Amino acid sequence: MKFCSNCGAPVTLKIPPGDTLPRHVCDSCSTIHYQNPKMIVGCIAEWEHRILLCKRAIEPRHGLWTVPAGFMENGETTAQGAARETLEEANARVEIGPLYAMYNIPHINQVYILFRARLLDLEFSAGTESLEVRLFDESEVPWDALAFATVRNTLTHYYADRKAGEYRFHLGTIERAPARS
Amino acid sequence: MKFCSNCGAPVTLKIPPGDTLPRHVCDSCSTIHYQNPKMIVGCIAEWEHRILLCKRAIEPRHGLWTVPAGFMENGETTAQGAARETLEEANARVEIGPLYAMYNIPHINQVYILFRARLLDLEFSAGTESLEVRLFDESEVPWDALAFATVRNTLTHYYADRKAGEYRFHLGTIERAPARS
Repeated sequence: MKFCSNCGAPVTLKIPPGDTLPRHVCDSCSTIHYQNPKMIVGCIAEWEHRILLCKRAIEPRHGLWTVPAGFMENGETTAQGAARETLEEANARVEIGPLYAMYNIPHINQVYILFRARLLDLEFSAGTESLEVRLFDESEVPWDALAFATVRNTLTHYYADRKAGEYRFHLGTIERAPARS
Repeated sequence: MKFCSNCGAPVTLKIPPGDTLPRHVCDSCSTIHYQNPKMIVGCIAEWEHRILLCKRAIEPRHGLWTVPAGFMENGETTAQGAARETLEEANARVEIGPLYAMYNIPHINQVYILFRARLLDLEFSAGTESLEVRLFDESEVPWDALAFATVRNTLTHYYADRKAGEYRFHLGTIERAPARS
């Protein structure tokens, strides 16, 4: 951020009076511009013993597989956002169920919020952000080609919970991957 | 938003190619400025059978009572944010426990994320955003002077759960209050 979105004048990074963190503050109109984490909302969409995964047609992680998920929009609930993303990425209609996982990713200012969901019919297809969409049995999950650590962790918990006979809520934090030597 | 925070030129509200919603798009450098919901993180801080509430010294709802909670910051986890807000508003140290409630407030683009927490000592006091901070027994909770619907709903569930002997996670949506006639 270099300019004030309210008046167009330059902004300066400084700690406003009474605050504890540096913010972008307008040199002209004094508006304080806060920046906060964003939510990614999505779901594990189930059809009998299979789940729906999408092969990404966009960066990051083009060509890798993910559960349907994306940035939550203003004016919607977390569950509405998860259903909307599933419709956009997989042209799939779901009934959103219980909250299943919440992952903090503090180094990129994101929080993943994932639900379990029931796929309502088999009329799904790749949306514009997907190359391919299909149902996977546990034995078919492409563990080496999953797009994100959140997806890998969530599906690992999911199959362990299913084996144990009880789905529990999972809360976790994804740390920055160490640099490769 | 009237000006581009990247280059300072005016922005226009329009639907970018491939998108489905209107965004603020820069007339000059074409940067798309997305706006997304914000998270409010906080906790029910417990000390034996009592909980910590803060009387607000700031608007909105100046003079009314709330659990410690505030906007999640970049670079932190939801639990770290809840502990930080408790330290800022009540000078209180807590150990954050399980996720207790998540409330969508779509008409103001907020999601509340509230944990149960254990107050670690009794050396708390009003922070700069609080007029007063104290522990409340259930019989003392100021139900008619609570600041937000989220707080009222959370505490109603909390005491019902306590009576039932089991704390369950609560997910809900706060709708816009109807206009008074």
